[in-house]
Formats: sequence, structure tokens, C-alpha cells
Amino acid sequence: MLVTNVFMGRPLVRLKGFQKLTSIDDALRTWLNILQIKRRREVTVPLHKALNRVLAEDIVAEEDLPRFDRSAVDGYALKSESTSGASQFKPVFFQIAVAEEVTSKQARQVWTGNAIPKGANAVVMLENTQRLDGEIEVWVQLAPGENVSKKGEDIKKGENAVKAGTRLKPYHLGLLAALGNSEVRVVEKPRIAILATGNELAEVGSKPAENQIFESNRTMLSAMCHELDAEKVDLGIAKDDVEEITEKLRIGLLNSDAVVTTGGTSVGGLDLVPDAVNKMGKPGVVVHGVAMRPAMPTALAVLEGKPVMILSGNPVAAIIGFEVFARPLICKMLGMKKEEHRPVIKAVMARKVATALGRKTFVRVRVLQKNGEFRAEPVSARGSGAISTMTRGNGFVIVPENREGLSEGELVMVHLFGEVEAVNENV
Amino acid sequence: MLVTNVFMGRPLVRLKGFQKLTSIDDALRTWLNILQIKRRREVTVPLHKALNRVLAEDIVAEEDLPRFDRSAVDGYALKSESTSGASQFKPVFFQIAVAEEVTSKQARQVWTGNAIPKGANAVVMLENTQRLDGEIEVWVQLAPGENVSKKGEDIKKGENAVKAGTRLKPYHLGLLAALGNSEVRVVEKPRIAILATGNELAEVGSKPAENQIFESNRTMLSAMCHELDAEKVDLGIAKDDVEEITEKLRIGLLNSDAVVTTGGTSVGGLDLVPDAVNKMGKPGVVVHGVAMRPAMPTALAVLEGKPVMILSGNPVAAIIGFEVFARPLICKMLGMKKEEHRPVIKAVMARKVATALGRKTFVRVRVLQKNGEFRAEPVSARGSGAISTMTRGNGFVIVPENREGLSEGELVMVHLFGEVEAVNENV
Repeated sequence: MLVTNVFMGRPLVRLKGFQKLTSIDDALRTWLNILQIKRRREVTVPLHKALNRVLAEDIVAEEDLPRFDRSAVDGYALKSESTSGASQFKPVFFQIAVAEEVTSKQARQVWTGNAIPKGANAVVMLENTQRLDGEIEVWVQLAPGENVSKKGEDIKKGENAVKAGTRLKPYHLGLLAALGNSEVRVVEKPRIAILATGNELAEVGSKPAENQIFESNRTMLSAMCHELDAEKVDLGIAKDDVEEITEKLRIGLLNSDAVVTTGGTSVGGLDLVPDAVNKMGKPGVVVHGVAMRPAMPTALAVLEGKPVMILSGNPVAAIIGFEVFARPLICKMLGMKKEEHRPVIKAVMARKVATALGRKTFVRVRVLQKNGEFRAEPVSARGSGAISTMTRGNGFVIVPENREGLSEGELVMVHLFGEVEAVNENV
Repeated sequence: MLVTNVFMGRPLVRLKGFQKLTSIDDALRTWLNILQIKRRREVTVPLHKALNRVLAEDIVAEEDLPRFDRSAVDGYALKSESTSGASQFKPVFFQIAVAEEVTSKQARQVWTGNAIPKGANAVVMLENTQRLDGEIEVWVQLAPGENVSKKGEDIKKGENAVKAGTRLKPYHLGLLAALGNSEVRVVEKPRIAILATGNELAEVGSKPAENQIFESNRTMLSAMCHELDAEKVDLGIAKDDVEEITEKLRIGLLNSDAVVTTGGTSVGGLDLVPDAVNKMGKPGVVVHGVAMRPAMPTALAVLEGKPVMILSGNPVAAIIGFEVFARPLICKMLGMKKEEHRPVIKAVMARKVATALGRKTFVRVRVLQKNGEFRAEPVSARGSGAISTMTRGNGFVIVPENREGLSEGELVMVHLFGEVEAVNENV
């Protein structure tokens, strides 16, 4: 933790606004405790529009799946008892059944997935038979139930097939369709208002002044919202002006479930957004300054009972701040049982990395898979603002507060945000 | 490999349509060689609609990023040379600059991201200063360039910032925005027509007959297309009737870039779809029967120069067939340099699994992360058709043709299709 030391009457480290940093866990807990987030409302959508939505209700099977005994192969359905003693040397003959029910000396041709006809309890595979005129030879002995997918084998009637809070992937949609659901109750998309602040920001597509840069955080954070099934409400760019910021925050609070801002918060400097938020109501800012790197100047606030997330203007700090605070918030709004995590893999650090004690540090790495081994190469950059560290990297390693870095050769957990390339020397 | 043995004049294994199975690699190579897939056309989309699209052209930076030297901190910009000898004991005084250019005894307040004023080459952090009346005390000595993000530090002018063939993630969009792109050239979505065949299939939402099941493959495969940025063209359900299948295939070929069918192909049995395809033109079916499990009855065809993929009706076989053949096809249509893979992690098999020699087997597993160790539990099911093996599992292990299974405790590579849950005993 950073502390204010005094040396010869003069503060060595002076942090206006926050005298000490809060750990990520404490910050999140404090904020969420005040917020008491409720799940968004339910909406009904057609099944083919439900990909990546979050299920709002348990889906209990109203019928067995499959609904009836089905053939698992192409062949002939028959009574297994009648195949007793059958072999290549001593085939057993069956008449081709025509009636609905098969008798003990009959067999009926079935294709994979067909219902097992009445009277039959097994299916002999085509390749173990020989078709003759109006009858077949069977060369193998079958057990009852052989090559039959039993009714309810996949899901039993009354079983909870897919649980509320599940993010719907193609396979879930398949299962829901198989259970006869043409539409499904999902959780409404949380609306997240996004505001960028800063005199130095020019709208992409415009002509920037000499000392301006293109604003890129809104595009990026909107896409991150979209990936989590949240909807962005674009508040545009505000100048470094408390009035303008206040006005846009009000619009955001009116039209969304949460507000995210970037810029106008810092370590001991310009705190326009926290100041604006604190003037707008209670409790306002509840955390300012988090023991992490990047994204230390992050502030968390509550206005009109809604979450306000004040992220750094630095793109990478904004991304990491969003990962750490917006992701769990949105998962809660979606009614997910747990925070949804990125895939995690184990990798060997290819080089050592230094980090600051007392800060949870998010080290961007590029993981390569080489002959089945995963190696993580730190993506170096002087400034944490270099967005190219995200496009060149594919994951981050979280170094805890009590470590001063990672050693070369150390085994680490990498949280993946991009694809891992495989380089196989032997292929 | 499966071979046709003859014993006492009688075939022990008889496979109508394909006497031997083709390996996955050979099947894919044969098919793609005939097809000679070209990348789809380019289209321009606004940047905020470009998430998950595939970039059609290299994005070369037209300017340095950042465009000018920027402050990396909140503080005062000044000439580093003038801080020589500064310390807590012996502060150096600077006048607050008002003019555009700072002189050697002046400093100008800057916030993170601001341009470095003319004449300055470093920024002293706020906490290392004390503001007095019209001037500041500086307590530290600075090196030239200290706390400055140099022009071009992130991306240099003329540098290839994002390559053609890249799937655009939020960070790529951020970088493209930062470089001033309000729209972007992406590859047109491939249109994939999807047809389900089978008399046993009822449309979801309808009332099925007693021996019918709900059709679920179209929903699932459409979602898998969507995940890859391909667009589905729905051909509905065809009865087991060559005429009807032919008619729907024609509509598909007319309106799409590739056709996928499910059902009506088997191991030695009902080959309605391959038969229909072969009647429609040359070369028709080029591979039928793949040495894999599930999805052995998969057939690959070419009609009017377009790919036709004939998948099993069994949902899991259809998924795996799609993974193995449609995924690389769509990646090629999108102009990606390599096939895009699912995340792969290493895990320890929790139980042994038996597989058949001569078939590449896709074993579904559920990976759990427990105290940093990944364990893969096979998801058991008698039939490969059980779609619940996909919703209960989160990955598959590919067992090569020359292995008869996996041992308990064996280290395997798992291809993830779902989230890995972390169970931490110590937390």
C-alpha cells in the first residue's frame, strides 16, 4: 500500500483525492455492497436470436429426450432373443416385417434415428446382415437394447436441461430446440452509457487539431459491452468541463443502467469526473484509487442507485478497469451465478518482468504454443497506454501485490483475450 | 483403417458407398484442392459495426501514434536540464509558463495525455512538486524524455498496424479508431445454406407426430456459422425424398456460397443426400466416409464449383463434422491466413477412455480447474447423438487413429468450446 511519508516536514508522496489505494477486491466489494444489483428484466426472444444471451429461467424437460426409443444405427430392428446362437457359420433368418409390430421371426429396416417398432428391442447393423428375397440373414447375436438410443437417454422428463444464468452457446440452442422450445426467456441486455472526456479528444472521422488525438475508448468499450451482451448508450465526448460532464452524466443516468466514463480522473491531478459525480448526489464516489497497474486512478461511484465507473483515459487502463469492474457488474445484471471468466491457460514466462510491490499488476503477454508447450512472452511497452500491447498480445498475467515481478521460466496462469498461435517445429 | 474382410465367401464388414474411410486430413485436402476457395468480396462497414468481422486490407498507420509527444502523467512539463541537482533538500524553482513555449526556467502544468509544450522535454510528476505563488518547487532531477510518451511510441507512421485476415476484436477496433478510421474494409460474410433432412423431423414450435423428434441441427449450425461471421440461409426440412432434397439443394446453391446438409448419409445405409448430389452434377461427392468418430458418415461434395457438406443427422456428429470441415472452409472464405482455432489447454485425464483404432476420435470432456490444476473428466454417453454431452462438457480431446484410448492421468490437449469452471479449495 502507498502511504504518505513525511520527510523534513514535506510530504514525499502526495496524492490529492485519495490518500491510500484500495485493493481490487475491497473496491469491488464496497461498490457492489452499496449497489445491491438486481438482475435485469426478462424478455422473450425467438430461439434463433438467443445466441450469447443469458437464460432467465431454468429449462425443465417436459418430455424425455429422445421422446422414444430410437435406432442408433442403420439396420434391422428385431427381438434380440430371436438372434440367440446366430453367427457367421449359423445365420438366423428373419422375414421383413410389413405390419406395425414385429413378431419374433420378423425384422424391420430402420435408419439411424428412426423409432424402434413395437415388438423390437434391438437393432442389428446392416453390415452384420445379408438381404435375401423378402428376408434377411443375421450373423450376430444381440443383447436387449443393443444399438438402441433409449427414451430419455439424453435428458429425462423433469430434468433441468439448461439452468437460468447460462450464457447460451450453439449447443444450448440445439438442446433447447430438441426439447421443443421455439422461443426462450432471456435476461434483458443491460444498457451501459459510455462517455469519453478530454479536451485533447477528436471524434474519429473528424479533422483533429494539432494537439488532439482520435478518441478510441468508446469504440473499444462498446465492443467489450457487446461481447458480454450489454448494449451501449453513446454519450459522446465531453470537454474538460464540470458543467458539460455533469450534463452528459445526467443523460446517461436517465437512459441506462450504468455509466462508464474515461478520462478526467488521475493520481493526484485532474479529477473533473469524480468532482462532477460528487456534486451530483450521494453517495457519489465510493472508491478512488485502486492498488492496481494499470488503471490505478479508477474511481467507482453510485448515483441515483446506479453504478458509475470512472476509468482512466489511457486505453489500456480503461480496458483493464473495465475487465476488473464492469465485467463482474454486467454478469450480475445478467443474473449469471458467477462472474464469467476468460479462458485461462498455464504458460512458462519466456522472460522476467518487474512489477511494483503493493499493486496488482496486469502484465500483457503473447502466448505461443510450440510443440505442445505454452510460452508467454511479455509484450513490452513503455507506456501502459500503448493499445498495440493489446493487439500484439493475447493474454495477461496477474501479478499479486506481494510480488515484485515474475521470473524467467516461472509457470504462470494467462487469462486469454486473443487466439494462441501454434508453432509446431515438427510439422 | 476399416477394410473389407472376406470370410468363407461372405463379407464380414460391408460398407455400401464407401469401401474404405478417408482420413480427416486427406478428406479436407481433396475437397479444398478441387474447390480452390477464393476469399469473399470486400465491403465497407462503420467501425462500430466491425466487431468479429475479418479485416480485408492491411491497415497501415498514416501517422505516428501518438501523433505528438504526450505527457504520461499529471504534472509539469519543463526542460529536464534545468532540474539538474534538484532534491528534497535543494528544490529547484520554476515559473509557471503562460506563453506557448516554455523557457529553461519555466514549467507548464499538463495532465496525462496532453501534448508536451514546445521547449519542454520531460514532465515532473505532481507529487514531486509543491505549488507556490506563480511558481513551483521541483524536488527531483529528470532525464530527457522522462514521463513522456514519445510520438510514434505505440505505432510508427507506415507501420502495418493490423493485418488483412485479422478477426477484429475490441482492441483492434480501438487501435483502428486511434489511427483515425471511422470505417473499415472487411470481408463479406459467407452465406451458408443449411438443410435438414429426415421424415422423423418436426419443426420446432409445431406439434410432432408420435414417431417424430424436433429438428435442432439448423438452429445449432446457424449459431456456429454466426460465431464465425458467416450468414445462414435457411433451407428448412426436406423429407427423405431425393426429389425434394434435390429441389432444396438447388435453391441453396443459387442463394449461398456453400451448402450444409444434415441427415440422409450413413455408414452403409441410407444415402439419399449423396445420391441426390451425385445426380445433380459433377464432380458431386468427392469424399464419403471419414475415419473419425463421431461423424464417420460425413460426405464432402462439390456442385457448380461450390462446397456441399453432407453431415450426419446426429447432432453431435453434425457439430464435429462442422468443426472439422466447415470451420477451415469458412476461414478460407474469410481470407484468414490460418484456420482459427478454439483455445487449447493442457489437462490431466481424470478417467481412462476407450476409443477405436483407425478413427480419429473426438472425446467430449468437462475440464475443471482446481487449485490451478486442470482435470478433464470424460462426459459419458452411450450415443454420440446425445447433445447434452456438449452442454455438460466444455471441450474435446482428439485421440489419434493409432491410439486405442486415453489413460487415466494422461496429459492431454483439450480444445475448449465452453467456459472452464474454477473450483478453489483454498479460497
